[in-house]
Amino acid sequence: MSGNDKKIPTRVLTGFMELLPEEQMVFNRMLDTIKETYELYGFSPIDTPVIERTEVLLANVGGETAKQVYSFSRGKNDLSLRFDLTVPLARYVSENAGDLNFPFRRYHIGKVYRGERAQKGRFREFYQCDIDIIGNETLSLINDAEIPRVIYDVFSRLDIGKFLIRISNRKLLMGLLGSLGVTEESSVEVMRAVDKLEKVGKEEVKKMLAEIGLSGRDVEAVFELLSIEGDTDSKLATLRSLGVEGSTFETGVSELSEVVSSMRSLGMPEDSYIIDLTIARGLDYYTGVVYETELVDRPEMGSVCSGGRYENLAENYSKRKLPGVGISIGLTRLFYQLKEAGVLKFESGSPTEIMVAPLLEDLSVPLEVATMLREANLSTEVYFEGGKLDKKLTYANRKGIPYVVIIGEDEVSSGLFTVKDMGSGEQVKLRKEQILSYIKEGNRDA
Amino acid sequence: MSGNDKKIPTRVLTGFMELLPEEQMVFNRMLDTIKETYELYGFSPIDTPVIERTEVLLANVGGETAKQVYSFSRGKNDLSLRFDLTVPLARYVSENAGDLNFPFRRYHIGKVYRGERAQKGRFREFYQCDIDIIGNETLSLINDAEIPRVIYDVFSRLDIGKFLIRISNRKLLMGLLGSLGVTEESSVEVMRAVDKLEKVGKEEVKKMLAEIGLSGRDVEAVFELLSIEGDTDSKLATLRSLGVEGSTFETGVSELSEVVSSMRSLGMPEDSYIIDLTIARGLDYYTGVVYETELVDRPEMGSVCSGGRYENLAENYSKRKLPGVGISIGLTRLFYQLKEAGVLKFESGSPTEIMVAPLLEDLSVPLEVATMLREANLSTEVYFEGGKLDKKLTYANRKGIPYVVIIGEDEVSSGLFTVKDMGSGEQVKLRKEQILSYIKEGNRDA
Repeated sequence: MSGNDKKIPTRVLTGFMELLPEEQMVFNRMLDTIKETYELYGFSPIDTPVIERTEVLLANVGGETAKQVYSFSRGKNDLSLRFDLTVPLARYVSENAGDLNFPFRRYHIGKVYRGERAQKGRFREFYQCDIDIIGNETLSLINDAEIPRVIYDVFSRLDIGKFLIRISNRKLLMGLLGSLGVTEESSVEVMRAVDKLEKVGKEEVKKMLAEIGLSGRDVEAVFELLSIEGDTDSKLATLRSLGVEGSTFETGVSELSEVVSSMRSLGMPEDSYIIDLTIARGLDYYTGVVYETELVDRPEMGSVCSGGRYENLAENYSKRKLPGVGISIGLTRLFYQLKEAGVLKFESGSPTEIMVAPLLEDLSVPLEVATMLREANLSTEVYFEGGKLDKKLTYANRKGIPYVVIIGEDEVSSGLFTVKDMGSGEQVKLRKEQILSYIKEGNRDA
Repeated sequence: MSGNDKKIPTRVLTGFMELLPEEQMVFNRMLDTIKETYELYGFSPIDTPVIERTEVLLANVGGETAKQVYSFSRGKNDLSLRFDLTVPLARYVSENAGDLNFPFRRYHIGKVYRGERAQKGRFREFYQCDIDIIGNETLSLINDAEIPRVIYDVFSRLDIGKFLIRISNRKLLMGLLGSLGVTEESSVEVMRAVDKLEKVGKEEVKKMLAEIGLSGRDVEAVFELLSIEGDTDSKLATLRSLGVEGSTFETGVSELSEVVSSMRSLGMPEDSYIIDLTIARGLDYYTGVVYETELVDRPEMGSVCSGGRYENLAENYSKRKLPGVGISIGLTRLFYQLKEAGVLKFESGSPTEIMVAPLLEDLSVPLEVATMLREANLSTEVYFEGGKLDKKLTYANRKGIPYVVIIGEDEVSSGLFTVKDMGSGEQVKLRKEQILSYIKEGNRDA
């Protein structure tokens, strides 16, 4: 292999996030936290191919999303990269229904692809972290209360600041519109308009509703619903007393009440959630309870975890009716925004807990010490390269390694090893068998 | 969204592995074991985009591999899906060299794509689990001894049967061929032929060597080297006494000796590795020590973990000389083969440790119990759907959930909950606060 003087530029493509090790460590810790919390609630892992047949992925997708999908041909196949984890879930459940246990509780953490217009904070490759509970024909409403409990645990554990889970039920607005005689088609358009409320403001939405064909009185009725104030119980009471006719609205109110009651039984603090009837979720396929999650001190980030209840997951693939409820966290964007906001601390670029710095030719003792430390499950590396102690300590320092064991001729002959706490600068002389307890018990968590 | 009677076929594409939850659980456990072991040795995580510019990914690739790459155009860009994790590493290190600490120890676990001809056990999307140590200009040879120590730990922990790490040094064969006057170009061809030895047999390789242009005497000399017998120390002694001239061969022998000596200092058992000079690794870019790993009872699987030392990782992208040493485990294929061989046991389809089965209308107590269990870090799910106890127990049984807490009216009024051990069938009545200790201390690990 001969050298080539012309070097190829190595920039990562626009819209693709790539991290330095110290950032990756934090990203992975967040990913692990989400995964562990999902598992705590008994969700099973699945993994699906990134590439699927285009006809499968785009079965029910058109417009903007379809244009954003990465598609290409290979032999006789039209292929695409998945743009979310919900369509693959629908395909997976349809394909494996006979082998799955319902309700099927799965989590899926993986990369998805959307060729969006390049824009700061928008990614073309990003991680989604999803949970869904899928029923066979029916699915108890209590699942809709468990989902926000999972959100609560995830964001408590992520420890990225105060958060608020906004809950609504699409049946409320749909029911109201139905009682006003608005067609289902127009109602869906109204939901989409209401979903933009926070972004474009009240007046703009009112204009949109008028354009859809709502009368002035209907628009007022919609905003009366959206503006209900008070704590959770008084909001529920107001909803009950509104006198909206029709079973859809009534079902919406009773579902919301039951979900709130179960969330309380599940121990969710009152200040962790709020009934917010402006949460409509743009996606048409939600049919009941919907969620959004806001970081209280970062409202500009928008919702960092959203989802809801849907009637039928896989109508394009399966004759089975598969109702479900689920949420998704877009971790790549969340991480990026937290990083930009200075919320994240990048302290260590490696999992190494202790580094062995040999200062002698014969490495047999340093290698034995390293093996001893690893056998005690301490992440250990040995600095094998030449050079003075200073260079080795600088390496450990830059990587954020908390401890260094220095092993020179003196240490080998005396059997006393120098252990340096890189944080405090403190140095102690220890026998081989004392190193572990010094780090594990004495110092490590100090 | 209106129903559609024509259902779309949901088969996963040929060559793409998708698992049921109980299989995924085992797959993920293997992935975690590999990851934890890599971290135990202080390797830092990185993650790179699956999509890169074609000119970057294929900078140094031609022939069969180039044809297998998934490429497509998007706007003005020619894009490709990564086909391994080494090329992205080279690009990553070149791009971020100023921000990395050398030696740079990284692990990378991710999916790669190769549009190979469809064949049983061959995958077009598969996980690679790589570690590499990259030096800046130089890299100590002791790293080459640490790598097999990591292999040893990984495969001991994976617990999938006896394994043997085969080690050689390409400088030995290259040095011998040089001393015989074989050109470098022909030598590379010889290495490739020797790499096929196990597959095609001795006579076939002899023919190939003759075709490359080696004389009968040269072929004999090559096979004299390849056939050296004995234990590790006698092999090393024979190599030293062969009298092959030239510094390349001598360096090869002394490197191999030093690596073996350090592997011993690192506590590797003698029966975990073997010097095997027939290991040549087809890839041209290896320049020193090379490794393959065989499952002793499954030689038909071929090498399940391979790698070696290379002179310069990123010559296409960077003016820096970046020598390195690393290995890769192709986990998708390994998992598939172990599954086919019946080595893997699929016991549980979910992480759930305990299921709450409510047998009453008011779910507040069951929900409180579930929260208590989760707060104690026990993976818990509640079976919310209706139906008789039998149905609920069947669900738990099918998913391999080890414990069920049954909560009916009697349990709520008496405060004594029925806990069923699904393995033994044993049932006990426990107070709420006793459930945890029963499962955690008493029974769980029995």
